[in-house]
Amino acid sequence: MAESTTEAAPVVTAAILVIGDEILSGRTKDKNIGYIAEYCTNIGVDIREVRIVPDIEEEIVAAVNALRVRYDHVFSTGGIGPTHDDITADSMAKAFGVTIDYDPRAVAILSAHYEPGQLNEARMRMTRIPAGADLILNSVSKAPGFTIGNVHVMAGVPSIMQAMFDEVAAKIPTGAKMLSRTVPVGMGEGRIAKKLGEIQLDYPDVSIGSYPKMLDGSFATDIVLRSRDAERLDQAARDVEAMVAAMMQATS
Amino acid sequence: MAESTTEAAPVVTAAILVIGDEILSGRTKDKNIGYIAEYCTNIGVDIREVRIVPDIEEEIVAAVNALRVRYDHVFSTGGIGPTHDDITADSMAKAFGVTIDYDPRAVAILSAHYEPGQLNEARMRMTRIPAGADLILNSVSKAPGFTIGNVHVMAGVPSIMQAMFDEVAAKIPTGAKMLSRTVPVGMGEGRIAKKLGEIQLDYPDVSIGSYPKMLDGSFATDIVLRSRDAERLDQAARDVEAMVAAMMQATS
Repeated sequence: MAESTTEAAPVVTAAILVIGDEILSGRTKDKNIGYIAEYCTNIGVDIREVRIVPDIEEEIVAAVNALRVRYDHVFSTGGIGPTHDDITADSMAKAFGVTIDYDPRAVAILSAHYEPGQLNEARMRMTRIPAGADLILNSVSKAPGFTIGNVHVMAGVPSIMQAMFDEVAAKIPTGAKMLSRTVPVGMGEGRIAKKLGEIQLDYPDVSIGSYPKMLDGSFATDIVLRSRDAERLDQAARDVEAMVAAMMQATS
Repeated sequence: MAESTTEAAPVVTAAILVIGDEILSGRTKDKNIGYIAEYCTNIGVDIREVRIVPDIEEEIVAAVNALRVRYDHVFSTGGIGPTHDDITADSMAKAFGVTIDYDPRAVAILSAHYEPGQLNEARMRMTRIPAGADLILNSVSKAPGFTIGNVHVMAGVPSIMQAMFDEVAAKIPTGAKMLSRTVPVGMGEGRIAKKLGEIQLDYPDVSIGSYPKMLDGSFATDIVLRSRDAERLDQAARDVEAMVAAMMQATS
């Protein structure tokens, strides 16, 4: 029998770092975490942790340094605009212990974009890039993000972030894709929990999650199975479906 | 002149800890962070940090222990249901170094709620509460959350979490309420950034944030001013409005 192919492509891990007082105050509802998380699942990158921190340099530095040593990649969003509260680029330079200055490549991009006289001091702030970083281009606002080491620094505005993430995703090596199956169950998870736990013990290589939800005022459950091994995933999903069918039978 | 009243009520800080693989995979889009953050702003609690971690005991323990020593409160969501992947209660007991067992108060609640014979082994898992914790009641699912030390452990399903958060918010002391004003600006932030930074220097006690957004394909900006001092907030907002009016005048 053929060996499992899951070892062929290594697992690629990542964290998301959201930077911004407006998210912590609840004024702006983050839309980037869910977008990046779903995107990463589809391309075979495992998001293992997310942090949201305020616009305070020492907090940004501490978070990015904790995350970048622990995961293959860090995706940051927010704080790279032209105003005084945009301190992400300087914070990243500090975290990596490098200098930061006006980047000729970034200056060229914004010089071409703005009308003569419009590239003022504030907008020039957006061309400050830590030494050694590569630019992340974006077609929406033109002002670039950057990749320094394994940290990919992107804008917070979703449309811009999404354009930047396409650039980032095209460049990073991705891992074995996580496959998933969802088994919808028309009852609360308390009824199936015990047998589901037994199936989980049979499949240590398949992650089986149980997600309750309210549906028209009563509980329903989605059983989500995830694995990088398609065959084992199929087997486990069949076992769960059979278990659910038996439970429905028993209670009908 | 009356002294500022901001010292009368101390600042109350908090962090949010979201627990769940389904958020990190992007399958479920979190709705609790924005809800709790906005709620806290309204009652005078400052959310200073958010973390999202997977359903892995050591990750939960590490995160809650890092957050609970640093902030006045920690609000956790997720992982307190009846299935094998619901490991939050056990992880909290471990983080606090206390035992965990079936809690007579929780057993009484669920015994009253379920039909005879329906309170099975899996549902009984939801009555496991760390020693010394207080229950957080909820009218939606009945299964309680709990408060241990300064950590408030709630469900992940938004309707249940929201019911629990009402209970929590009613019990914790809150601080001086953060007040805010928004000044909408019909142009990109690059045009106003320099003068806005100068106003920020005049008001170290007012946090001035600049939030760009796309509006019908062009950039617009919301200037958000936040302070616990109503008078200073008013002054700063007037200065920003005057600056914006002058800029609009200059460019019209």
